[in-house]
Amino acid sequence: MSYKAPVKDMLFNIEHLANIAEIAKIPGFEDAGLDTAQAVLEEAAKFNEGVLDPLNREGDINPSSWKDGVVTATKGFKEAFKLFTEGGWQGLQHPVDFGGQGLPKTIGSVCGEMQNSANLSFALCPLLSDGAIEALLTAGSDELKATYLENLVSGKWTGTMNLTEPQAGSDLAMVRSRAEPLPDGTYKVFGTKIFITWGEHDMAENIVHLVLARVQGAPEGVKGISLFVVPKFMVNKDGSLGARNDVHCVSIEHKMGIKASPTAVLQYGDHGGAIGYLVGQENRGLEYMFIMMNAARYGVGVQGIAIAERAYQKAVQFSKDRVQSRPVDGSIAASAPIIHHPDVKRMLMTMRSYIEGCRALASVAASAYDAAHHHPDAQVRKDNQTFYEFMVPLVKGYSTEMSLEVTSLAVQVHGGMGFIEETGVAQYYRDAKILTIYEGTTAIQANDLVGRKTSRDGGATGKALAAQIEATEAELAKSGTPHALAMAKRLKAAREAFVDVVNFVAGNTKASPNAVFAGSVPYLMLTGNLMAGWQMARSLLVAQEQLAAGNDAAFMQAKITTARFYADHHLAKIPGTRDSIVEGAECVTALALESF
Amino acid sequence: MSYKAPVKDMLFNIEHLANIAEIAKIPGFEDAGLDTAQAVLEEAAKFNEGVLDPLNREGDINPSSWKDGVVTATKGFKEAFKLFTEGGWQGLQHPVDFGGQGLPKTIGSVCGEMQNSANLSFALCPLLSDGAIEALLTAGSDELKATYLENLVSGKWTGTMNLTEPQAGSDLAMVRSRAEPLPDGTYKVFGTKIFITWGEHDMAENIVHLVLARVQGAPEGVKGISLFVVPKFMVNKDGSLGARNDVHCVSIEHKMGIKASPTAVLQYGDHGGAIGYLVGQENRGLEYMFIMMNAARYGVGVQGIAIAERAYQKAVQFSKDRVQSRPVDGSIAASAPIIHHPDVKRMLMTMRSYIEGCRALASVAASAYDAAHHHPDAQVRKDNQTFYEFMVPLVKGYSTEMSLEVTSLAVQVHGGMGFIEETGVAQYYRDAKILTIYEGTTAIQANDLVGRKTSRDGGATGKALAAQIEATEAELAKSGTPHALAMAKRLKAAREAFVDVVNFVAGNTKASPNAVFAGSVPYLMLTGNLMAGWQMARSLLVAQEQLAAGNDAAFMQAKITTARFYADHHLAKIPGTRDSIVEGAECVTALALESF
Repeated sequence: MSYKAPVKDMLFNIEHLANIAEIAKIPGFEDAGLDTAQAVLEEAAKFNEGVLDPLNREGDINPSSWKDGVVTATKGFKEAFKLFTEGGWQGLQHPVDFGGQGLPKTIGSVCGEMQNSANLSFALCPLLSDGAIEALLTAGSDELKATYLENLVSGKWTGTMNLTEPQAGSDLAMVRSRAEPLPDGTYKVFGTKIFITWGEHDMAENIVHLVLARVQGAPEGVKGISLFVVPKFMVNKDGSLGARNDVHCVSIEHKMGIKASPTAVLQYGDHGGAIGYLVGQENRGLEYMFIMMNAARYGVGVQGIAIAERAYQKAVQFSKDRVQSRPVDGSIAASAPIIHHPDVKRMLMTMRSYIEGCRALASVAASAYDAAHHHPDAQVRKDNQTFYEFMVPLVKGYSTEMSLEVTSLAVQVHGGMGFIEETGVAQYYRDAKILTIYEGTTAIQANDLVGRKTSRDGGATGKALAAQIEATEAELAKSGTPHALAMAKRLKAAREAFVDVVNFVAGNTKASPNAVFAGSVPYLMLTGNLMAGWQMARSLLVAQEQLAAGNDAAFMQAKITTARFYADHHLAKIPGTRDSIVEGAECVTALALESF
Repeated sequence: MSYKAPVKDMLFNIEHLANIAEIAKIPGFEDAGLDTAQAVLEEAAKFNEGVLDPLNREGDINPSSWKDGVVTATKGFKEAFKLFTEGGWQGLQHPVDFGGQGLPKTIGSVCGEMQNSANLSFALCPLLSDGAIEALLTAGSDELKATYLENLVSGKWTGTMNLTEPQAGSDLAMVRSRAEPLPDGTYKVFGTKIFITWGEHDMAENIVHLVLARVQGAPEGVKGISLFVVPKFMVNKDGSLGARNDVHCVSIEHKMGIKASPTAVLQYGDHGGAIGYLVGQENRGLEYMFIMMNAARYGVGVQGIAIAERAYQKAVQFSKDRVQSRPVDGSIAASAPIIHHPDVKRMLMTMRSYIEGCRALASVAASAYDAAHHHPDAQVRKDNQTFYEFMVPLVKGYSTEMSLEVTSLAVQVHGGMGFIEETGVAQYYRDAKILTIYEGTTAIQANDLVGRKTSRDGGATGKALAAQIEATEAELAKSGTPHALAMAKRLKAAREAFVDVVNFVAGNTKASPNAVFAGSVPYLMLTGNLMAGWQMARSLLVAQEQLAAGNDAAFMQAKITTARFYADHHLAKIPGTRDSIVEGAECVTALALESF
């Protein structure tokens, strides 16, 4: 199969939901209007369809390989990465000062979706570099910035995030890697890091590891963790590469999916200590790492959308090709392509509506990010930051969980052929399963939503969002079409259920933490479902207007149908989920441990 | 990990839900009471835990292999199969007349669960033999029975089902394999069959293929399909093996899971024609094949329960071992095993409640099967047959769909370790995905539920079941405990939603087939959910009584908690699903084909 970037849907979101015209009024983004978005997306589509997509299956069959500490990427990846950097794709969203293109995330994030649809394993490498760049931009000294940023932004070097250790996964308080200060202000870093994505490879000249470690004498727990830059090769004053640093890849993992992306075990300091450079201040490492993680979490959410889109396209293609059985309505008097069967349509519509809802949500969140970081008005920045931060765990958690269902349905559409590896769709099912785990499992996202995003402000952000949704309901009612009214009905029930849950969460987190956290993931799923559904409701209104104006009737009609499907098949689940959370906590934690 | 058969839960179902005491009153089953069940289950547990379980991962790493038409099973499988046959496990449910043990399905089916938990790939081989045996018992001539049954029942030979061809998967009307009658009453069979599970291997002396093909001049479509026995080796009059028949394995598939079970492409008649023996009458092949398929569909449903159980056990074990983060309720002032985190408990309870619900449903269905086939009273047989036939698509469809969610959650509990193949849980995620596909996809099960099981009798069976559920609600209300009342509330809402859907399905299948089939799989999921939940409600009542009687308090308390969890977290979904089916059909089929 060949992947075809859904440029039209992306531009619909960028124009009508993410309001790129408003983003383009922000100083620095004057050239980043709809025309630019369109030009960039079309170029990105060409690159990702033409260069990255053809390598996707090859990477699954012939994963990156390790020999004597050296990791060789799947054949073709190194050349593709060269083209990627030459095209300036790594620097798309990064500052012009360091050689980037300075485009808003509103545009950049959909290019990320295309990269991940075309080749999830490949796209992880730039995704991690993005995180390293953000961390250095925010907390790095001028010297660190000067030494590393330009080459990271160009893609000449790549970046990694080193958090996990064998005993420290979600629980970073247990990080044991240590850093000894040296007289010259640098540190010697020691320890073992695992699950380091693209932690070693041959696609770039240097690898810039961002590493969590404890400085000697630091406090216990997460307040004693610092962040260090540890380059694979030392960098000389003139920017040329010097000696090999004491960080070595001792093995890579044998994984169920994303096989082309090497997942490294990195050993720091086995030969005297790896030279590291402190980022920001000592003991504030977790705070900085969260900068990377928030960027990466959003990025992983986009990966969920991306793999789902790829799986959907393959399922559509198969269902139009595969001839099997007569349609139940007698419309064709012979065996027909299976897309004529209602259940195949149901599966495709389920996939499509999930994807469009999550994409719309991610697009709106990206636009909030741009306003939060660049708008001249402080209050506008603050409001958008609040909105964005509320959406990050949803984009990450909901989009990745839905990608499990979508990739499963894609296999299902293929029937027995789907289970045969040569068909290719099984890869997406295997690849997707990591997305609900890395950069914080769905439960970790849910903790974030419950704790930082809901309890901390007593549910105020949630209730403000509910008020905005209510306004959309009013617009739907005003429109008065059957589809708009059906959407309004589901949206209202979902929004009311959401408010119940927000009150339950905000009111009980301190007094009954077990009851609240028993429903944390269902709360995340409910909220992600609602927020994506809300964007589909807004889309429905826009599409009705566009249709009335005679614009692109087929697309707008499809958008309306898809939005209505979202309402009746996804939003309809929300009241039941509310009951499970608000009335069903007791039996989640009641079973005696020895009874499991 | 090592699998531990859940004998206690199985016996609870057999005793209290499947009413083995009633089964043991049926002539022929006099010795098949609870004591026998317990003895057989304990022996089965020993065999499956000790012999099949240790080979499970080996089969994933070193699948069965093909060379020059010969398939060699994973090392150790042949020896294990010998022990399996020596133990008499193949013949457990089969007639004493042919060397079987003549035990009821009520006992046999849970032994099947154990086999499949221990080793899904291995257990497929006897599962297919069971189907072949059932077909021959029902439709085979005395000569065919005499020639084949004893060796199939003993496991000296194995059986296969040959339906699928490249162009004919779900659509058997498109079968092209053909059979030429020979003067001696035998046939020459020609054609290509694909996806033939254990279609070639070295574990047994002979393989008895049951093959769908068209006799020359037969009508088009499914009414022109006949069923043939085609042995791998011809069988001489004295029962010894003769010449190799003209059926050859030209390749086996490279699959995402169940790798140890060879999935064969079989070529019939490339060297002059494979000798075949007609089963029953010409052109009635599909009818006979449905006998095999109904046995196999129930069996695949049990596979769903089995793989889910294995995955659950592994997740429990990991969550008790893996130490990470402090409990949110402050009950432990240090990092604790992750089972102390509410969301981990939620995942485990989700898995556990699904499994127990589906196991209970399968157990009740098995008991109905026994009564339907062996009860002396014709009306009792008929009623039980109706009940059993309604349950088969649910056992198959719902149990396998739930196994996808459960195996996914099992990976999720393991975090990053779950994605590493060496951990082992990823295998269950990969293995499970075939279960919603083979022996009829979930959509095919749903078609059966809609067409044969609901529309045909105008919803009468469904509504009779609803009346029985209402009686259980009354018992719950009478019990009056908080858990019973909470269960009654959810069960009532679910049952009312079910009746709405039954009326919708029965009332619209002919007039609006697209609308009904748009909701066919949601209808199946809703109904499976309800029927399993009903059994959990019955279990709750039994457990309350047992608890009051002072029997096995820990087990009964756990059963009550699990039933309550089922109510609040699974049954609670049903009203939303009703809305999607009854009010959400329009947009399933509305999108123009070119818009996909």
